[in-house]
Amino acid sequence: MGKLERVSAQADRYTVGIDFGTESGRALLVRVSDGAELACAIHAYAGGVIDEALPGGGPRLPPGWALQDPEDYLETVRRTVPSVLEQSGVPPERVIGIGIDFTSSTMLPTTEDGTPLCRLPEFRNETHAWPKLWKHHGAQAQAERMTELALSRGEEWLKDYGGKVSSEWFFSKALQILEESPGVYRAAARLIEAGDWLLWQLTGSERRGASAAGYKAFRQDGRFPDASFFAQLHPDFAGVVGEKMCTKLEPVAARAGVLGEQGASWTGLRPGTPVATANIDAHATVPATGYVEPGTLVLIMGTSTCHILLASEKRAVEGMCGVVAGGVVPGLYGYESGQSAVGDMFAWFVDGFVPGRYSELAREAGQELHAYLAERAASQAPGANGLLALDWHNGNRSVLVDAELSGMLVGLTLASDAVDIYRALMEATVYGSRMIIEAYQRGGLAIDRLVVAGGLPGRNPHLVQMCADVFGREIQVIRSSQGAALGSAICAAVAAGAYGDVATAARAMGGVEEGTYRPRSEWTAAYDEIYQDYLAMHDLLGRSARDEQAGVMKRLHQRRMHERGGRTGQA
Amino acid sequence: MGKLERVSAQADRYTVGIDFGTESGRALLVRVSDGAELACAIHAYAGGVIDEALPGGGPRLPPGWALQDPEDYLETVRRTVPSVLEQSGVPPERVIGIGIDFTSSTMLPTTEDGTPLCRLPEFRNETHAWPKLWKHHGAQAQAERMTELALSRGEEWLKDYGGKVSSEWFFSKALQILEESPGVYRAAARLIEAGDWLLWQLTGSERRGASAAGYKAFRQDGRFPDASFFAQLHPDFAGVVGEKMCTKLEPVAARAGVLGEQGASWTGLRPGTPVATANIDAHATVPATGYVEPGTLVLIMGTSTCHILLASEKRAVEGMCGVVAGGVVPGLYGYESGQSAVGDMFAWFVDGFVPGRYSELAREAGQELHAYLAERAASQAPGANGLLALDWHNGNRSVLVDAELSGMLVGLTLASDAVDIYRALMEATVYGSRMIIEAYQRGGLAIDRLVVAGGLPGRNPHLVQMCADVFGREIQVIRSSQGAALGSAICAAVAAGAYGDVATAARAMGGVEEGTYRPRSEWTAAYDEIYQDYLAMHDLLGRSARDEQAGVMKRLHQRRMHERGGRTGQA
Repeated sequence: MGKLERVSAQADRYTVGIDFGTESGRALLVRVSDGAELACAIHAYAGGVIDEALPGGGPRLPPGWALQDPEDYLETVRRTVPSVLEQSGVPPERVIGIGIDFTSSTMLPTTEDGTPLCRLPEFRNETHAWPKLWKHHGAQAQAERMTELALSRGEEWLKDYGGKVSSEWFFSKALQILEESPGVYRAAARLIEAGDWLLWQLTGSERRGASAAGYKAFRQDGRFPDASFFAQLHPDFAGVVGEKMCTKLEPVAARAGVLGEQGASWTGLRPGTPVATANIDAHATVPATGYVEPGTLVLIMGTSTCHILLASEKRAVEGMCGVVAGGVVPGLYGYESGQSAVGDMFAWFVDGFVPGRYSELAREAGQELHAYLAERAASQAPGANGLLALDWHNGNRSVLVDAELSGMLVGLTLASDAVDIYRALMEATVYGSRMIIEAYQRGGLAIDRLVVAGGLPGRNPHLVQMCADVFGREIQVIRSSQGAALGSAICAAVAAGAYGDVATAARAMGGVEEGTYRPRSEWTAAYDEIYQDYLAMHDLLGRSARDEQAGVMKRLHQRRMHERGGRTGQA
Repeated sequence: MGKLERVSAQADRYTVGIDFGTESGRALLVRVSDGAELACAIHAYAGGVIDEALPGGGPRLPPGWALQDPEDYLETVRRTVPSVLEQSGVPPERVIGIGIDFTSSTMLPTTEDGTPLCRLPEFRNETHAWPKLWKHHGAQAQAERMTELALSRGEEWLKDYGGKVSSEWFFSKALQILEESPGVYRAAARLIEAGDWLLWQLTGSERRGASAAGYKAFRQDGRFPDASFFAQLHPDFAGVVGEKMCTKLEPVAARAGVLGEQGASWTGLRPGTPVATANIDAHATVPATGYVEPGTLVLIMGTSTCHILLASEKRAVEGMCGVVAGGVVPGLYGYESGQSAVGDMFAWFVDGFVPGRYSELAREAGQELHAYLAERAASQAPGANGLLALDWHNGNRSVLVDAELSGMLVGLTLASDAVDIYRALMEATVYGSRMIIEAYQRGGLAIDRLVVAGGLPGRNPHLVQMCADVFGREIQVIRSSQGAALGSAICAAVAAGAYGDVATAARAMGGVEEGTYRPRSEWTAAYDEIYQDYLAMHDLLGRSARDEQAGVMKRLHQRRMHERGGRTGQA
């Protein structure tokens, strides 16, 4: 009773977090006082990921392309927000703020008034007029040229991105539009992150977030790269920032605007409701853990894994994806690293390489197939499967930063079975995370707390236990199963003024489950030994990747690209 | 008509070849004049491979053990020979000779009169009293000690066996019996190859073949290793050769004896019918190709692949399994190399890692699943799958001679599928054979002709085409689908005096299919490039296997053995 009374002044105020993922979007209605989740609604995008042909038909998209339909984003708003209001019975006037998070860099070209070019009849059949999803990999050539140019110019910012530009980032995609479809580029009065575009649609005014600009568009210390950098890539690219973007940017959890008439009619909320700056989805998860102190590392484990570390200093860390001041929460440096194939690697294996008899065994055991395999895999002693894997099935994002690396499996015998390999893939994922943790530590950044979030920990608790054993560290698990949406709702509460800062809001509204995963010392010792072999293979096939002998992965990749007739952008 | 007239003098004489494989035995009735195969009968051993528990029950056998029941061998004789006589209508008096080939070293302990110890009630439950099948791997520790001792004593013969003693060979198994079951060893008046034992059963007298003694028991230049060598392994082992074996040995295709009353009653053939020296199964295949000239390399491709090269000189060749004067045919050196997992690696993959939907696709295409996968795999351009495999799933027999090496797969992406991996395994098999061919060539031995035999070429012609492409060489295919049994029938014809030597008999009775597989030059060029990467991985993970960094396979193996509680003998 004590708690309820203490928070009674806020007990009947709420915020809505809207989280836009790869395949679907969701709204979460949250009580401001304690983060209680009153209702959640999910909308699967009708168009999903557009990777074969445009909705209207036309030629097959090149390999690696991934587009989306902006109507799906709006439809998410129109369906999910009214739904959570109706489910919960909360009256609209009790909702004091809205927060948005989005995959990134998902970006689109629009007219001056924010109309997506792909909505205009004259551009409807033009592939470059459609939003490019974060995992659109068609701009690899542009990314590589950007890396080379930045190196040759000695651009300071490059080191803040692991020394390498990704094809997934904003300017790679923008330059691809310019080079492959100059007409679209010219017609695009704005080139904008989808999260910022959505905020514009809700509020009626264009305000962009500093976080995506920091992580995906090289904005450091308040500045984008110089126009001369862009000019060297293409003469018409020189003005991309000044002409098509914004230079004034909103920090995380700021009140970026208020709900306009259109946004109010879509959502059923009241015009004038504060809307927080759009955030990156993985990053939004951090405050939902309840911890926003320096030294907290959050692993958001899903189809891929994103590692976010908060710190009060800026240090040089090997092969991270990016470090941005205030990029996750104001006042701290947010470091991001990642593993590019985790949940989708397990899905790949189970879908492509597990015979039907395992499905029957799982059914008999009353388990989902992944759970069946993971449980049996977890029961093996470390080393008993005799296998070692590298999980670079979608390239290596950290710490090697090389999209041309690939997966490896060694130790196969005629006795190796699907459970053995499932376990090897689990271990590879966890060793890869340990590698990232150690890179931060080598960089001089302390890690005091480890929290896992995302969809995978709930589906595979054995994986979390393996993390604890391999890291030799205690691990906490986020309480919410909708971490990103909850984080957006927390930022909405700050933007609405209900809390003075994100840390206070996070402590009140976020949190972890009771109980922790503790390392088992004898398993830790066994994994320590195997990890040395992981390191050996990691370095042999990854770090020496350009050597004559060990560069096999890159040569295999290049041959495959050549033979399949694809672009070099295919990971 | 011309051919029939020319051979009319021999047209109504026949021989029977009996081939004892791992899971079954077969008899083939062959016309002496031209090798025409009139009838074949196969008997699957009732006891198969005994690798779990003895037929009478009892404790579980240790991992790696593989025993057999000698009754299965006799039952094969009793069932298959009468069957081929009945099927063909050939009268017994027209059968002028019998030949035998057997897996090797498959060996057993017997009493003085040849009774297998396992047939005696007092030894029925004693595992060491049963025949040890060639692939019994329980004697790895003994094999390793033998290698070390031979090295330290500077034994000359060791270099003729690739510098390493295999756990599959005769003395490894004999020493295991002595050390683990001294009572069985003492009671064993004879320790004998199963092929020689079978000849003894048929003829009533013990005569042993020089070939198995050469390849599996270190007999070189007419001599076994010195008694002092055996004494250093174990004091009671000193007299193993003199006490329990024979020192006078019969060459290949010699008349080792004649059918006795018992043998006659089992087979339905006439007492006094000549029986040729027992041979090793793979080796027996060579004359069935029709070629027994120096420079002929025969690849017998089945669950494993055995490479046999005939040459007129003895040269030092890296990592071959053995070279024996007259070991395959009198008058020539027979070199043997091998790949320890070929067909059974494809079976392992298809059984363990191919989802049910492929079976349906194969059914719709009217194909067997292996054929379906192989055909699709073969249609890919070299390099298009982006994968590279090492096929050491059962260790490496040539040229690295290391049972602790293991299989590897590199280049995996989320787009890799079962067809891609099937192809990578096919390529690994073929690159491994190319490695063996090049080792012979580096050793100064010319290879003028390549012939493939065994069960695999018929089932997977794409694999043979891949051999031609990767080797850049024309390849012929043996005509008979029962090469070993035909080879034994050829040796029987020589033993019976129908031909003066094996070469003449082989030319008349053996042969290859019309037409050859020819290399396609653009594919050869592509494979040449990928083969360089195969070499890189082969050397990195195989040759440097004891290095700190690259020794990962051996460490994985040792950890697996330790964790699974198995013996180190498990490959």
